[in-house]
Amino acid sequence: MYKKLKQKTLEANLKLREYGLAPFTWGNASQLDRGRRYMAIKPSGVDYSALTANDVCVIDLEDGSAVDGKLNPSTDAPTHMELYRRFTNVFGIVHTHSAYATAFAQARRPIPCYGTTHADYFYGEIPCARMLDAGEAGDEYEVNTGRVIAEALLELGLDPLAVPGALISGHGPFAWGGSAAEAAANAAYLEETARLAYLTCGLFPAGAEPAPLPKAIQDRHYFRKHGAGAYYGQAR
Amino acid sequence: MYKKLKQKTLEANLKLREYGLAPFTWGNASQLDRGRRYMAIKPSGVDYSALTANDVCVIDLEDGSAVDGKLNPSTDAPTHMELYRRFTNVFGIVHTHSAYATAFAQARRPIPCYGTTHADYFYGEIPCARMLDAGEAGDEYEVNTGRVIAEALLELGLDPLAVPGALISGHGPFAWGGSAAEAAANAAYLEETARLAYLTCGLFPAGAEPAPLPKAIQDRHYFRKHGAGAYYGQAR
Amino acid sequence: MYKKLKQKTLEANLKLREYGLAPFTWGNASQLDRGRRYMAIKPSGVDYSALTANDVCVIDLEDGSAVDGKLNPSTDAPTHMELYRRFTNVFGIVHTHSAYATAFAQARRPIPCYGTTHADYFYGEIPCARMLDAGEAGDEYEVNTGRVIAEALLELGLDPLAVPGALISGHGPFAWGGSAAEAAANAAYLEETARLAYLTCGLFPAGAEPAPLPKAIQDRHYFRKHGAGAYYGQAR
Amino acid sequence: MYKKLKQKTLEANLKLREYGLAPFTWGNASQLDRGRRYMAIKPSGVDYSALTANDVCVIDLEDGSAVDGKLNPSTDAPTHMELYRRFTNVFGIVHTHSAYATAFAQARRPIPCYGTTHADYFYGEIPCARMLDAGEAGDEYEVNTGRVIAEALLELGLDPLAVPGALISGHGPFAWGGSAAEAAANAAYLEETARLAYLTCGLFPAGAEPAPLPKAIQDRHYFRKHGAGAYYGQAR
Repeated sequence: MYKKLKQKTLEANLKLREYGLAPFTWGNASQLDRGRRYMAIKPSGVDYSALTANDVCVIDLEDGSAVDGKLNPSTDAPTHMELYRRFTNVFGIVHTHSAYATAFAQARRPIPCYGTTHADYFYGEIPCARMLDAGEAGDEYEVNTGRVIAEALLELGLDPLAVPGALISGHGPFAWGGSAAEAAANAAYLEETARLAYLTCGLFPAGAEPAPLPKAIQDRHYFRKHGAGAYYGQAR
Repeated sequence: MYKKLKQKTLEANLKLREYGLAPFTWGNASQLDRGRRYMAIKPSGVDYSALTANDVCVIDLEDGSAVDGKLNPSTDAPTHMELYRRFTNVFGIVHTHSAYATAFAQARRPIPCYGTTHADYFYGEIPCARMLDAGEAGDEYEVNTGRVIAEALLELGLDPLAVPGALISGHGPFAWGGSAAEAAANAAYLEETARLAYLTCGLFPAGAEPAPLPKAIQDRHYFRKHGAGAYYGQAR
Repeated sequence: MYKKLKQKTLEANLKLREYGLAPFTWGNASQLDRGRRYMAIKPSGVDYSALTANDVCVIDLEDGSAVDGKLNPSTDAPTHMELYRRFTNVFGIVHTHSAYATAFAQARRPIPCYGTTHADYFYGEIPCARMLDAGEAGDEYEVNTGRVIAEALLELGLDPLAVPGALISGHGPFAWGGSAAEAAANAAYLEETARLAYLTCGLFPAGAEPAPLPKAIQDRHYFRKHGAGAYYGQAR
Repeated sequence: MYKKLKQKTLEANLKLREYGLAPFTWGNASQLDRGRRYMAIKPSGVDYSALTANDVCVIDLEDGSAVDGKLNPSTDAPTHMELYRRFTNVFGIVHTHSAYATAFAQARRPIPCYGTTHADYFYGEIPCARMLDAGEAGDEYEVNTGRVIAEALLELGLDPLAVPGALISGHGPFAWGGSAAEAAANAAYLEETARLAYLTCGLFPAGAEPAPLPKAIQDRHYFRKHGAGAYYGQAR
């Protein structure tokens, strides 16, 4: 019944490992069905090498009840659910602990757009959601994590697909897209973007900061790949 | 007779190599038997690629005498023995020269908790044992190394399993756990934690320091994975 | 007809991936025919693992019209064309997003010659082309990119083959040579040179800068490998 | 006739590649015969993947004449020869462009002993030979390189085997030992030592410097592995 949904979810989870974004069991990918009713997600704490489509958990997006699968879903499932509720054109979400994105998250900083590699995939800076306070770190911790990410993103006044990722202060990155596979690819672009930004900052050792890429060039690169005037790739 | 003990010890030693924590012959893992009488440990200076269960040395924990095996045990054996005597719920110990943990050790600094990856496995900062003085670097060097690690850990007033690793000033990390396999996994988490902390510090180039993760979030993450209220993974 | 040209182009593109210079689809290599009339180049957005010689696009260098191949050429094709027009002894060009070279490009800095590894392949510093202004980032964006690279290079008053690479501010590196294969090798030397320069700068944390290699030693190394007096390798 | 000598030389050259110390063709290893008359060395500019024992060049140590082999020897051969003449208990030498050692060389700095990993293999700091002047970079360039390395080492008043490596300002490392295989291993220890020192320095961003390892602990570690009182490994 949920076979295709679970298979897609499995493949995106394995991509995280293949891209080197999720050491040990530190990452998870989810896929929403077309009707936005069922969310399929990695089970909690299961090693990628042992993961099968059958292990994937299916959850009702509205009430969070288990629909299919015998294992406990990822403890981050409520974060994914909250994001699906807020980002209504998103159908795939991933969370990783990839190193450079996590370094920016631990430093509690957004990733400024320093170059065209960034501009090719993210329209403007990659936001960093604010730190939760002690109350927010209580029972509703995972839902609150989703809330502050959505808040940080929606503050930009942009379509979530134009900035398909964000950092959580003191934690690490989330990325999303039109499918779990797209979300996994965006997580990989986010990590490479973070690495390039990190290396760039390293050339300014006296506390000076690199200048962001001029807006005209950010626009040129983003719109080479996205929107009606795109001219990158074969689909035109 | 000690077959199972030696096999477990072999497997943990090979894990060090697989995790990339022990370049060349720079690392060793030991396993204690359930009765806390016999310690099995890697022989000294033997390459991981040539290591067999038969090469593993078994030592009497009380008097340090050789019980089984024809090779010389790791020169660090007295450090392991001292730690087993002090940490009475620990059954596995590893020592590595993994790069980022060693950098903090050479800088003689503890690893502050900057993020949830750290908080998931270590409850609070990872301590750095003080430098030995010239006298302590004499005949009792290896035993003294164990003493200062135990001292640094027990000063925190915590169960050693809540902070399953520490650094030795000017040397490198030790990690431990309920078995040699757990100790090897904790050494890998320690290294990744050290790498993330290192990268985070690198974003503060003018001498400023990153802020530690708020206590409420450290607690939330640690207790998601440990203790009676844990809700991570499948065993609940 | 263009079989050999397309095969050489394919091989150079695959070298980019093999050298680790072009993550995802972020890179392209082109090869000019001996008569300087036809340019063969990677199609846009095609994954290296799926790329065949048949996919390679052949373009008329003069008017930019498609001569052979069904796919859209790389969006960077006009940059390659502009460089072939200006560098009349160059027959191969590559563009990558290799990390350390991109870090210098994002910092908008040339790569000074700090050591003999650099001097062996690049005669003097590797220039960084200036940032394009908003007008230049318009319809002629890719051609203008070629123009500022050529401008930065020709300002040095040198044969382009003596400094076979340059950075584009806010973007990444281009490299070139007597063939696409040579260009790909030069891109790899440029990346390793950038990495060594980056690491060297990292040892001067208080804002001080490393001293460049003395001119006499730069000359000695460059002319060990290039020109009439070369005595490196087997061809003498 | 020189079969064994050439085979040993081949194997040490392949080790440089296996250890990741010599990207492209950037490295060479040599082996001296027991009588200190013949030096076998890698041919110049030959790729490691194509190298066979038959390609290895044999040179008369006294007059530098070719004794066996049809290819041109490494351009660094005169440096090796000069070092063999000065270091009379050394039988193997290697030169690499390994990244962290080269970064220290480009920064023109010795590698201080910050930890026990260093002390296990190098007795005190790893020296950096002074920069050659314009005259020394002339016809006798390669011999002069050997001269300044020997000078830097012998100034320490130590047996070359106690500090089996050094850096050349603006260039990269040389390492040596009782055989080409030992020299290759020492080059690998030198690179890992350089990497650990580099990472340690990175934790002192405001220009402060890490403290060296106390002499008593340096001695303890060095003499655990070397000399009459050594107790590391199986040979005791």
